[in-house]
Formats: sequence, C-alpha cells, structure tokens
Amino acid sequence: MAKRPTIIWTKVDEAPALATYSLLPIVKAFTKPAGVDVELRDISLAGRVLAQFGIVPDDLAYLGELVWKPEANIVKLPNISASLPQLLDTIKELQSQGYDIPDYPENPQTEEEKEIKAKYDRCIGSVVNPVLRQGNSDRRIAPPVKEYARKHPHRMGEVSPKSESYVAHMKSGDFYEHEKSVTLRKDTKLRYEFVDKDGNVTVLKEIDAGMGDVIDATYMSRKRLREFFDEVINDAKEKDILFSLHVKATMMRVSDPVIFGDAIRVYYKELFEKFGKELEEIGFDPNRGLSDLEKRLSKLPPEKQEEIKKTIEEIYKKQPRLYMVDSDQGITNLHRPNDVIIDASVPAVIKNGLKGWGPSGETDDCVITIPDRSYATMYSEIVEDIKVRGQFDPTKVGTVQNVGLMAMKAEEYGSHDKTFFPSSDGVIRVVDEDGNVLLEHEVEQGDIYRSCHTKDIAIRDWVKLAVNRAKESGYPIVFWLDSLRAHDRELIEKVKEELQKYDLSDVEWYIKAPREAMKFTLERFRKGEGTIAVTGNVLRDYLTDLFPIIEVGTSARALSIVPEIAGGGLFETGAGGSAPKHVQQFVKEGHLRWDSLGEFLALVESLKLAYKQAGGDNKKILVVAEALSKAASKYLDNDKTPKRKVGQLDTRGSHYWLARYWAEELAAQTEDAELAKIFEPVAAALVENEEKILGEIDATQGKPQDIGGYYNPDDAKAEAAMRPSKTLNEIIDSLLNG
Amino acid sequence: MAKRPTIIWTKVDEAPALATYSLLPIVKAFTKPAGVDVELRDISLAGRVLAQFGIVPDDLAYLGELVWKPEANIVKLPNISASLPQLLDTIKELQSQGYDIPDYPENPQTEEEKEIKAKYDRCIGSVVNPVLRQGNSDRRIAPPVKEYARKHPHRMGEVSPKSESYVAHMKSGDFYEHEKSVTLRKDTKLRYEFVDKDGNVTVLKEIDAGMGDVIDATYMSRKRLREFFDEVINDAKEKDILFSLHVKATMMRVSDPVIFGDAIRVYYKELFEKFGKELEEIGFDPNRGLSDLEKRLSKLPPEKQEEIKKTIEEIYKKQPRLYMVDSDQGITNLHRPNDVIIDASVPAVIKNGLKGWGPSGETDDCVITIPDRSYATMYSEIVEDIKVRGQFDPTKVGTVQNVGLMAMKAEEYGSHDKTFFPSSDGVIRVVDEDGNVLLEHEVEQGDIYRSCHTKDIAIRDWVKLAVNRAKESGYPIVFWLDSLRAHDRELIEKVKEELQKYDLSDVEWYIKAPREAMKFTLERFRKGEGTIAVTGNVLRDYLTDLFPIIEVGTSARALSIVPEIAGGGLFETGAGGSAPKHVQQFVKEGHLRWDSLGEFLALVESLKLAYKQAGGDNKKILVVAEALSKAASKYLDNDKTPKRKVGQLDTRGSHYWLARYWAEELAAQTEDAELAKIFEPVAAALVENEEKILGEIDATQGKPQDIGGYYNPDDAKAEAAMRPSKTLNEIIDSLLNG
Repeated sequence: MAKRPTIIWTKVDEAPALATYSLLPIVKAFTKPAGVDVELRDISLAGRVLAQFGIVPDDLAYLGELVWKPEANIVKLPNISASLPQLLDTIKELQSQGYDIPDYPENPQTEEEKEIKAKYDRCIGSVVNPVLRQGNSDRRIAPPVKEYARKHPHRMGEVSPKSESYVAHMKSGDFYEHEKSVTLRKDTKLRYEFVDKDGNVTVLKEIDAGMGDVIDATYMSRKRLREFFDEVINDAKEKDILFSLHVKATMMRVSDPVIFGDAIRVYYKELFEKFGKELEEIGFDPNRGLSDLEKRLSKLPPEKQEEIKKTIEEIYKKQPRLYMVDSDQGITNLHRPNDVIIDASVPAVIKNGLKGWGPSGETDDCVITIPDRSYATMYSEIVEDIKVRGQFDPTKVGTVQNVGLMAMKAEEYGSHDKTFFPSSDGVIRVVDEDGNVLLEHEVEQGDIYRSCHTKDIAIRDWVKLAVNRAKESGYPIVFWLDSLRAHDRELIEKVKEELQKYDLSDVEWYIKAPREAMKFTLERFRKGEGTIAVTGNVLRDYLTDLFPIIEVGTSARALSIVPEIAGGGLFETGAGGSAPKHVQQFVKEGHLRWDSLGEFLALVESLKLAYKQAGGDNKKILVVAEALSKAASKYLDNDKTPKRKVGQLDTRGSHYWLARYWAEELAAQTEDAELAKIFEPVAAALVENEEKILGEIDATQGKPQDIGGYYNPDDAKAEAAMRPSKTLNEIIDSLLNG
Repeated sequence: MAKRPTIIWTKVDEAPALATYSLLPIVKAFTKPAGVDVELRDISLAGRVLAQFGIVPDDLAYLGELVWKPEANIVKLPNISASLPQLLDTIKELQSQGYDIPDYPENPQTEEEKEIKAKYDRCIGSVVNPVLRQGNSDRRIAPPVKEYARKHPHRMGEVSPKSESYVAHMKSGDFYEHEKSVTLRKDTKLRYEFVDKDGNVTVLKEIDAGMGDVIDATYMSRKRLREFFDEVINDAKEKDILFSLHVKATMMRVSDPVIFGDAIRVYYKELFEKFGKELEEIGFDPNRGLSDLEKRLSKLPPEKQEEIKKTIEEIYKKQPRLYMVDSDQGITNLHRPNDVIIDASVPAVIKNGLKGWGPSGETDDCVITIPDRSYATMYSEIVEDIKVRGQFDPTKVGTVQNVGLMAMKAEEYGSHDKTFFPSSDGVIRVVDEDGNVLLEHEVEQGDIYRSCHTKDIAIRDWVKLAVNRAKESGYPIVFWLDSLRAHDRELIEKVKEELQKYDLSDVEWYIKAPREAMKFTLERFRKGEGTIAVTGNVLRDYLTDLFPIIEVGTSARALSIVPEIAGGGLFETGAGGSAPKHVQQFVKEGHLRWDSLGEFLALVESLKLAYKQAGGDNKKILVVAEALSKAASKYLDNDKTPKRKVGQLDTRGSHYWLARYWAEELAAQTEDAELAKIFEPVAAALVENEEKILGEIDATQGKPQDIGGYYNPDDAKAEAAMRPSKTLNEIIDSLLNG
C-alpha cells in the first residue's frame, strides 16, 4: 500500500503567520481527498523561545532531524531572523500572556543566568535556515508567474548602444588570480597558519575536513585594489559618468566591508591626507561607510567639523559623481556598506537601461565597479550584450533556472571563519595533520585572505540535482565553471566523474566559464528558450536575482526549493520578509495585504514531491497540484492579489478566490473522476456564494482587530479575525470533515 | 580648367610585372578617353639596383617625394623584398645583359667597396613599402569580390557548441597590465634608461619626439609568462585537446621570438632539466624553435643524441598534443617561430570549425594560446561567439572594413628599436630632455620591456580617414580602444578632441574596448550589416586577415589602400607576393596564371581618387571606374580568372575578357554618351573577334617563351610574348592612338 505523505506547513511570524490562519484550512481541505496530510509545525520566534524552556515541543529540532530523512516535505514561510530588541519584545509579550519565562540577562553573573542567556541567544539571528537548508538550491520561475509576466510585462528602460556604462574589474591582484585549490585524498584536520618574515608561526584556525572535500584559498592585494579604485574613479571622472561600487557586504560580511572601505579611502583620499590624525582620533572606520564619519564628527571642535565638511564638498567637485542610493536624502553608494547589494543593485541598473541615479536626482551612465573577476566578467558580458542587442523584452525572453551549490556552507559564502587579514607581510598556508603544506600564499599586511571548504557530498548532490532538473525540464544544463580557476578546476573534475554515473542520453550538458556561460545562456534567453544555470554558491545568489528580475520584474516571485540531500524537500515561499507593517495595518483597520502567491506556488512543488514520496502511483496528488497551478494562473490573470488599501480585496478575500479557482479546476479536470465529483459541489457553492462570502469578509474591514498578541497571537482570536466568513468556513470545513 | 590627373602604375618583378605588359596598354587605352594619364614607374629590384649606380632614373626616390604631394595616385603591384641570394642573382643577370655594375663585396675592405656594399644593401629587404606608405590604412572588400563570395561561398567548418577550443590568455603580468602612457606637451628628446639595483644608469636608446606624440611603455613578466604557459599546457592535457601558440614573430621580431622560446622552455621543461648543460654547449636557442635543436644535435655524441631524442619522445607522451603545422612532416607549432602567424593562423582555426591538426593528422579542439591580453580578448570573443551562434555563413554575413593607424611606425609595430631585455632586476624609465621621468617600470631580469612612439599627425590623420570612410560608406565607425589601457586612454582623448572638428551629423561613431567592439561588430556582421573597425596598428593587421578570410575566404582579394597623409593615395594590389613559380611556368610552357583581379579593383579606387584630384567635375573618370567595377564582377561571375594548367585560359586571355566586359559596360552605360560612342565599336570588335583573339593567344601556349631576363626582362621580348594577339593589339592600340 502506498504511504500517506505528510506536508509540513510552518507556523511563522507576523503577516505570513496571520495569512496561514485563513489559508491552511483551505490547503488541508483540498489536499485531504488526494490522501495528503498537512501538519503545522511552529518555527516562530515565540515558539522557539517557549521551546527553549520546555513549555512547548521543540518543533525546529524535530524539523532539523526530519530534513535528514527522505520523507521530509516542508513548506517554509518567511520567519523572523530576530534582532535583540525583537527578542526582548517577545519575552515581554509572552510574560504578559502568563508564560513563566525569565527576563533576558543582559549581563549574566551566575551560571544559571549564563545558561538562560545562552538559551535566548539561540533564538537570535538567522537560526532556522541553517537547520532546514541541508541541501543545494533549485530556483526557477513557476509557469503561472512566467505567463503573467509575458502578458503583463514590467517596464525595462531603453538602452542606447552608445551607453558608456560598463563593468570595471581588476586586471590583476584579485581573488580570481591568486586562487589555489586542492581536493583532499583523506579525512584530515587542516591548520591555517600565518608565518611572518622572521619565521614565527601563528595558528589562525583549525578545521576538520573529509576525503573528497575541495579546499581553496586565495587573497586580494589591497595595494592593487586601491590602485584599481584609483583607475576606475579617474575613468568615471574622465567620461563624466557615475561611479558605483557593487559588493555584498551583508553576505560576505568579513571581506566585503574592507573592499568597500578601500573605495572610501581612495575616493576621499584628500580627506585622509588632510585629516588623517583627527579621523583616527574619533575612530572613523571607513569599512562602515561615510555615515560612520557623520556619526562621529560631533566629537571634533566645530571649526574642524566645518573644515572636514568643506573638504568633502570639494572632493565631490573634483571626483566623479557618485551613484546614489537616495539622491533626495543625499545618501550615496559609499554611505553605508549594506545599501548597495550587488545581486539586487546590478539588476536594478540593468532594469533602468544601464543607468543609475546621480547626486542631483539625474539618471546617467555609470561605471559598475565589481573588483574581483571571479564573477564580474559575467556581469560585464550581460551589460555589453545589452548595449549590443538592446534591452530585454519580458514578453519574449526565455527562462534561466538555477541549480546552486549551496549545501554545507559551500564556497565563499562559508568562508567567513577562514578570512584573515595578515598583521604583517608573510605567508599564510594550509597544513594537513601530516604536516603537508597543501596551499600557500605570500601576502602583504592587510591583504584579504580567504579560504573555502566545499564538501564532497554537497558537490555530488549538486550534480545529481542538475541532472534531475535537466531530465524534468528538458532544458540544457550549463555548469558555470572556469577551467582557468583553481577551485573550479577541481569541481570540473568531480562533475565529469559524477556525470558518468547517470544516463545522459536525454541530457544536453555543457561546462563553460562564467562569461561564456552567460553568452551561451543569453543567446538562448533572447530566443525565448530555457536554460539551467548550474552554479556555485555566489553565482546562485547573483543569478537567482538577475534573471527573475529581468523575466518577471522581481525575484520575490521565484520558486525557491531546497531539495534536501537525504531526498526530502524544503519549499521556501516569499523573499519579502515577514512584513511587520502588514500586521499593524490589519490590527488597526482589518485589512491584511499579504499575498500568498508564494505559498500557492511552493505548495504545487511540495505536492509533486509528495506524489513521489507516496510511491508514484497516487495520481490524485498530481491532479490536485496541477489544478492549484492553474488556479494560481487565474488568480494572477484576474488580478485577485490583495490590494494595498482598506476596503479593497485583502488576503482573506484573495484566499476565497484561490479556493474557488482551485475547486473549479478540480471539478473541470477529467483525469480523476472521483476528485471531480468531490469538487463539483464545492466549486458550485463557492461561485454561488461569491457575493455573500466577500461581503462577510468586507464587513470586518475598517475596524480594529484583536488577535491577542503580536509575536504569539491567540489562535482562537486570530482564527476568528482571519476567517470571518461563516459561509466560506462551512464549505471548507465540510470538505475537511467529509 | 580641370587638372589632368596621372595615375602611376608600378613596374615590379616576376609574374605581376609580366602581366603588366599585357594589362597596362588596356588600362591606358580605356582611361585615356576619360582624360587620365597612366605612367609606368620602375620599382623593380633590377631597376632599383641600376638606379643606385645612376644607370636609370631613381623612380623610387621620385615616388618617395610624390607621396608627400596631394596629386600622388599610385597603383602598386607586389614587388620583391629581396633576400641576399636574390640580389646576387640580379647583379649577375644585369652584368650578363651588359650593364657595367660591380660585384657585391661580401667583405668590403676599401672605402669604395664599402660604398658599393651600402648601395646594394639599400636594395635588400622591405624597402619599397616604408617609402610609399606615408599614411594610414584603408582596407575593405571591393563589391565585386563580396558579391562573388556571396554567390560562391567558400567552405566554413561546422562548429559544435560543445567545442572545447578556447582562447587562453594571461590573467596578469602581461603587457596589457603594465602599460603606462603619456602624451608629450612639447617637442623633446627622450632617453630610455636602465637603472640597476645599485643605482647604475645605462642609456638604452635616445629618440626625438614631438609635441602631441603618444609614448607608451610596458613590460611582460617572463616569470608570469612561464607560469601561464604551464597552466595552459596542463589545461590542454587535462582536456585532452591540442596546445597551440599564436604570436607574430615575423612582425614583432624582437619580442615575440622570446615569448615563443618560453613556450618551448615550459613545454619541453624536462629536456632542459636533464640536458641543460649539453643544450647550452651546442648553442641551442629556444627562441628559434625546436628546429634549432635538430640542426645542432649532431654536435653531440651519438648516445647523447639518442638520449635527447628519447626524452623528447617521452615529453610528447606526457604533454598535451601539439597543434601541427604539417603533421605529415612532423612539423609542430613549436618547430619554427615563423610558421604559425597569428593573423593567419587564428582565422584558419576558425575556418576549420575551431579545430586544429594534431600529430597524427587528426583534427581536434585546441587551446588557442595568445599570451598578452591587449588583443587576445577580441579573439576570445569571436571564438566564443562562434561556439554560441554557430559558424559564419559567407552568403549571409555583412562586411567589416578597416581604418588602421599604420602611419609612421605607429604602436607596437614600430617598437623593435625600443624593446629591451633588462640584464638584471631594476628600473627602466623614459626621461625627457628636462630630466622629467615620464614613464617608469620596475622590471626583473629578462622581462620583455617595450615602448612605442605614435606620432600626433598620424593619429589625427587616422581620425580624419575614419570620418571620411564613414561618410562615404554610410557604415558606423567603431574605434577599438580600451579605456582601461593607458595608451588607448591617450588615444581616446585625442579621438574625441579630433572628432569635434568634423560635421558628424551623418556619422554613427562608437568607442569600444576590443572585446566589446568585436561583440558589437559581430552582431551587425551576422545580420548582414557593414561596420568599419577603426583600429590601432596591430588590430589593423589582425582584423584585415580575420574578416576577409571569413567573408571571401582569403585576405588576398581585399582592397589595400594607403590614403597618404598629404592627400594622395597608394593602391596596393595582391597580397600573394610576386609569384616566382608563375614566371617559371610561363617561360617553360607559355602559360601565365597571374590573376590581375587585384589590379582591376585597385584601379577602380585609383580612378575614384583621380576624379577627386581632377577637381570633381570630370564625371567621365567615374563612369570608367564604375564600368571597370562591373567588368570585374562579370569577370568573376563568368569565371574568367586564369587557370592553373597549360592550354587553359591564362593571364593574357583573362585580360581579353576584362577588356571586353569593360568595353561592353562603357558602351552600355548612359551617363556619358561620348564614352559610350567611343566604346561601342570597341566592344563590338572584341565580341566579334573572341575566337580569333583567344586562338592567337592559345597558339603560343605549350611552347617555351623568351623574355630576355628574369629580374630584368627585355621589354620588346616580354611585350611580344605577353601580347601575342595581333587582333587584340590592334583594337587596343587604335584606342590609344585615336
């Protein structure tokens, strides 16, 4: 007998959690007749806090185990990556609700206090994703979203072939140039050592690594980086176009702020020459952006402050105009390191016709500065392609899906704990437990050294995933690997070895360096064809913004799936965060504008996995999934997404429409008569009661709502507020209980 | 009254000189009615020798002055760049003809002998082109040749998108990276100095330079070059594809043999490790290729020779397979430095479907190694474009014309006397006469340092030429200049300044770095559109082979014009040399197979210039030119080019056809009734007497011919042999004397 699959739906925070009160009953009701169970598991901030003290079961721990089992099938909605203030608010709220939990000990003295603090600290920051994401990444645009974009294209700025915008990258001295890499031949311990000019050895870090793992290390010369910035800034000045810098200081949080800081040191060189002493005194850290100087300036005497401000004004006159984050507020590219994030910012320039915003609110061509060549060349390729072939037309372009090597802190995104800034000139080397020097780099003081550790099992799983996606989609797969890069060379060998394990008779595959992969992909893209980019971790991040933004205007509507290494699946929804403002609006005026489209689309994919998990013979599951996909298309086509203002269609009403379309599709399909028979009366009832149901929902709009808590709403109150239509509830519940 | 323009036709050597006996009377006869004089001037090797001793007028000196006058209008046929043996033969022949000239003094002792040797030495090597080419370069495919290729496309090898061929270039340490450049602000003397680590200064060279001239200097790190070769060779091995190296040792005769030698030092590393001492003893110079070792090997004891040969065999087993020049003969890419010449060899790989020939005569993918990035990236772009978009289709592609900065030893091609190999680590600097250090490079022993001097006037003329060509053709002009390269940055500034002098309302112009310029150009090229590449001296050389080979199968059929700086024009014909074998065939069996197509096409352009020189109001000249262009089309279409074998149509017969088509076109045109009236009876006579004329010519085939000399034919004998048709001669001569 076939197994009965269970889909885990996650209980999260804020708007998506509220939406779940309305949506989950529909999901349960519509999937039950197909033999699928849907189970709610609590990964909300409040739930995680309570679990720390044994008050509720630890669902995150449960899921952490589940993802290592093949039956894992999780729909994960956006949750809070808590800051300390959010945690304190949560504690206060839970205490007010009567939960017996201690205060947060800011300065723990006793062992007990320390333990309490440790428990709370486990709830801070990004703690859910690292537990649940035990696999690589599968990202693509779901067909309903793609179809919608083709019919309702977003605006893409015109591009002139005379555009002077271009991607500037270093010619030498960068990470790309210095990379060395090795594949381990046995399990071992690795030691990162710094050897100074006098032969003194300092151990920087020790890690465990396994046979088959790929270790790479490289460094960027700070001297060359600053020379490069100088050149590019001069070139921008010469051409009278904007200077812009695109890094990812949020993700590459150790290395990229330093690169960002060097841009400031070069652009504002005169400032440091004139006021070096003063800037040091007040503790200005360029790596935090010019805003750090503004914060600290008041520590100086007023005359000095004036002098510095005047010098900055003079610099702006001499140097090229800066790309602006917000020209009204005078916020420049160099104001804060986290404002311009490459994966979003370069697509924004592209969307804007290869133009950026200048200091006076003008749009102009810009130098898109991306110092390291490892990935800059592919941005260069697309920018130049656009200059030659014109702006992309969303009604005509194909699709670029991504299979990304993300598992187990792969590549640069796992390098933070192995990023070092040598305190003097010397050598950094990686030594195994037998004393063999595996990698060695001569570095100068302050250079950015970084090393990555990519796990064998993650790489092999990634290749498997690529082959599976190729077979499912019929699209060619392109491994974006550069045989002239040391790390990639190790990967190419592994990829070729691994591919031999599969039947590739129906798989078209390529291995191409990023620039050439982009060229190949764009050629197909412009012809309306589909291609799968099989990439490392950084390109995964970059491309899964770049192409969705070109294709459908936003990456928030892309499917984000983590096919777990153990065989299960994690289906993430909505890249837009958990939307605190939406909750405020709902509590204040009874209008929720969370769009559950991401949940609908993720559920389609989750159901397809459930079908496989059930043994592949329960076609009902596929029928339900297919009907949901079509319902999502109608939902988009007929514009049934929630609107912004009170009185208009809101989340609850949008769920009515989804349920109605889903039921209609199920009633109309001919593949499964039993399901059709079940859903015919449901569809009829939903159509017949359209006005009544929407009226019951609308009646609650414009009034404050009581949900009994912000971080930990009262389930009964929240459900009442989110399911105000008795008529709709009856239809849904009769299915659930039928 | 309008000036009567004179076209200079050059008397040259060997086959084209023989062809002139038959063709020139036709040319004179057909242009005379339009008011154009055609004058023969002797630049043949024999003529130049006789001129040295005052026996005949020095026509080359005359032309050397003429090219600096606006009335210059020269059709230059291929002539001999004499080697010493050719000179000795010429001297012997002239003496035998009774000319009183001395023997060549190989070891001159007296002042008189030294003077004689100096006179003769002035006749050796390439001495004509440097005198006549006082301008930049205008190269393109004439319409008749383009039309013919579209109708009769040459074969282009299919390319697989899975081709592993790619262009490998250095990631750093190359000329591209280290370039510095400056534009002189006044006339000055420049001193190239080497400063060793102890501060000792050696003056390497002094040159005069003028205000506005652009000086650049750079170096290639030999260490990095060898590391690069090592990487690329390993990658070729890894991928199991051919290793190929593409340089231009013939033209870059100081720097490129050293680069070539380093490839040998790396590929055959093991040989140097094992037999370093022996190789040094016998004086093996890797810069001369492995053939130099083969020549010297016999100096070693037989056992040692065997050991070395065995080691080489072993190296071939371990290293990647080499790209072959001639696999039957076992001649590899590394055999001789002048065998694989980049401008011809890369197009050959492209034409062959991105494949080269391997050691066993197999074709296979290959690494196309081009160490320096200055121009390698544009080859990379076209190679990758072909992998993505497929092979070019000669029936569909557009055309890429070239305007090249060639005048006054511009750029790298004039750098030989400023190329240095530092004898120790140190600094090479360029100092002006006021002691200012303009450029400075830290170099290591053996690095390749080179500096170029590009004259202000040459650059300005080049921009003018580009604008003129844009207006004449209606095509966009693209300046292939890289704003991230120091030299190009200086040029960009000059170009922008210079462009302001012209009315650009009808000119579409761009400045793009080579890779992007190639991308832009290829996009148009594949759509069948025309584009003008406005390039520096090296790209001129590369692109004027690359595109003609793709478009029409050979660069020999491209127009090559030097618009002289002073306003005149030099129209060069036939890139195929002066064809000694053709003369032998004619003397032996009365069949000459020189194709005068190049002369026809050059004359069309020469006539167009003559029209301008005559004041622009004598339309007859244009009518004659246009008719000749159409005649050349018919000549190609009806396949009236000379054939290879005796008994078939030969040069003389082909000239009959040209004359006939030309006359027919002139008779048929309606723009000038006077000309039509003159040529109607000529055309009729040529048609009527077709059989008779060709019969008179054919009657002389199969028999030996006496032309009274090889280097200095007897004019009467040669004319008799080359104009055997009394009937044709009468028709032509009546026009001439009419």
